[in-house]
Amino acid sequence: MSEPRYTALARSLPASVPFVGPEAQERARGKAFTARIGANENVFGPAPSAIKAMQNTAAEVWMYGDPESHDLRQALAAHHDIPPENIMVGEGIDAMLGYLVRLLISPGDKVVTSAGAYPTFNYHVAGFGGDLITVPYVDDHEDPKSLVKKAKETDAKLIYLANPDNPMGSWHSAADIAEMISGLPENCLLILDEAYIEFAPAGTAPSLDISDQSVIRMRTFSKAYGMAGARVGYAIAHADLINSFNKVRNHFGMCRISQAGALAALADQSYLESIVEKVANARTRINEIATEHGLTTLPSAANFVAIDCGQDGEFARAVLAGLINRDIFVRMPFNAPQDRCIRISAGTARDMDAFAAALPGALADARKSI
Amino acid sequence: MSEPRYTALARSLPASVPFVGPEAQERARGKAFTARIGANENVFGPAPSAIKAMQNTAAEVWMYGDPESHDLRQALAAHHDIPPENIMVGEGIDAMLGYLVRLLISPGDKVVTSAGAYPTFNYHVAGFGGDLITVPYVDDHEDPKSLVKKAKETDAKLIYLANPDNPMGSWHSAADIAEMISGLPENCLLILDEAYIEFAPAGTAPSLDISDQSVIRMRTFSKAYGMAGARVGYAIAHADLINSFNKVRNHFGMCRISQAGALAALADQSYLESIVEKVANARTRINEIATEHGLTTLPSAANFVAIDCGQDGEFARAVLAGLINRDIFVRMPFNAPQDRCIRISAGTARDMDAFAAALPGALADARKSI
Repeated sequence: MSEPRYTALARSLPASVPFVGPEAQERARGKAFTARIGANENVFGPAPSAIKAMQNTAAEVWMYGDPESHDLRQALAAHHDIPPENIMVGEGIDAMLGYLVRLLISPGDKVVTSAGAYPTFNYHVAGFGGDLITVPYVDDHEDPKSLVKKAKETDAKLIYLANPDNPMGSWHSAADIAEMISGLPENCLLILDEAYIEFAPAGTAPSLDISDQSVIRMRTFSKAYGMAGARVGYAIAHADLINSFNKVRNHFGMCRISQAGALAALADQSYLESIVEKVANARTRINEIATEHGLTTLPSAANFVAIDCGQDGEFARAVLAGLINRDIFVRMPFNAPQDRCIRISAGTARDMDAFAAALPGALADARKSI
Repeated sequence: MSEPRYTALARSLPASVPFVGPEAQERARGKAFTARIGANENVFGPAPSAIKAMQNTAAEVWMYGDPESHDLRQALAAHHDIPPENIMVGEGIDAMLGYLVRLLISPGDKVVTSAGAYPTFNYHVAGFGGDLITVPYVDDHEDPKSLVKKAKETDAKLIYLANPDNPMGSWHSAADIAEMISGLPENCLLILDEAYIEFAPAGTAPSLDISDQSVIRMRTFSKAYGMAGARVGYAIAHADLINSFNKVRNHFGMCRISQAGALAALADQSYLESIVEKVANARTRINEIATEHGLTTLPSAANFVAIDCGQDGEFARAVLAGLINRDIFVRMPFNAPQDRCIRISAGTARDMDAFAAALPGALADARKSI
């Protein structure tokens, strides 16, 4: 048998999936979910103007998207008041993390993240042979101090920090992040993943310093803008770092319809504000539902809430299973002690009602089974 | 200045772009093109049912696409009469070529292609440090025999062949390709890029042998299906090779709208047939226009025609410049002697009229300037 000669690295990798999609779970269950509140998608959807822009572009999709995403980059530059040379648009933060890891990480290079942080980032680090080193959460927050300390100890090339954090929803102030940045080891790059930043209180994002080569910020249209399925993310960084993406990225990788949608979505900031408010209301509702059943929630600056199920990971996994059995798609942290929680995405009133109806049964099942 | 520590490979790469997009050219010119017939896009566009499916999905784009592209893979499996385990869907052939090169090529590994074949493939090979070895076209055809011979000599891991070929439009019979496959060196993988196969005469594609680990076929919705901007391609291969993509691909990389569009497009084979006919008519028209001005064309099995400008590359480049000056977006082969040609994509009647109107002036300019 004439087998392809994979690289040693490729042979060593598992054919793993960072997350199993809800559709795959539905196929396995043979049954649809009634509430899709497990992937921090924005159930309120994109702005009507963005939907219209995408619909209007469908017939033009015979054309490749502009490989420079020029119009979108110009609009983002105006929005953030920085030059377009400091912005790279890509196929979602996931793809951009992949490109960035590829640019920096060779087999054996060290990367520091929090244990239980973003699995897709870890997947990319493993995929390029990087050596992932983790530090624990402290009080359910990623810990900038220990991330920096560990990076110094290990001579790491990269640190990953999400602010607000996923899966806990916790966050740090801009001042704390700025302090972290000022203390970074020489030639260590901080990836500041701000996928959820639009949901966070004012004062969570440090100001953009495009002269600083030690930080790259990641933003997305997948969360607050409600366009996860469109795959539009962008990075903000020093122009040299931004330009380095041109060495490896898929230049013609952007969907033309998605480019048009993102451009329209960005222009409708009042819709964005209405979404942020709806999400805040949903967070309040999640807290009410949890409290009603004797559970506590963690404060959240994102479009989801971690509910502390009050016992260990085994118990929380049983609660999660009970919810899934009741047709509610939810997920939960992978690592102890954060895995005492389940993570509920902000949903519509109907989603929240379905969750409220399912929770007592799921809790009762879990209490019985453990 | 705290610079990121790029890998040695990343430092060695140019921030190059395989192609400059027509939008970038329009911005540089300060003027729009009147005919967009330079990127082998399908100006006739996707099926109305596919447009409708994309429009209907726009409001649902808050959901990530199914990372398994289950429905589309099932439909493709039925269409090709092979199991879905032998199909991988990805973000266009470009992205899939990148994943595949990543799986096989480490710095210094040898890859064989034709001089002047697909630049984006070469970009990926360079991007992973591969050593690209080229063999010349023979009579404006890629040459299976010399590709195989060179792969044997150099112990290459990969051979790239497009059938039909881009940029020349030439093709080989299924029997010739089958013969090439049977003569491949042990453990050498042939990438058979069939992006244009739907336009080719019956008998151009060898039958699909999913038990054979020595070939991977690449197909796309970008060309005959008219959805270049949607970014949907797929690979057909042995299940082990297909599954290896799961080690490195961006699992949540597919645009949900594009998935829906491709599914609908595939279902409308009668629309596809009508497109193939329109493209054939446009090829005839390109030949007529060329002949009228004393030029010859090469036979083409794709949605474009190479026009032999009758002199050298310098002259053809002057003709190309004259067409661009007259607002006609066209491209041409990079390598001699193929660069004696310009490459015209099949266009609408209006595109073809615009080309016909521009060509005499472009030729006159070129004759004056050379």
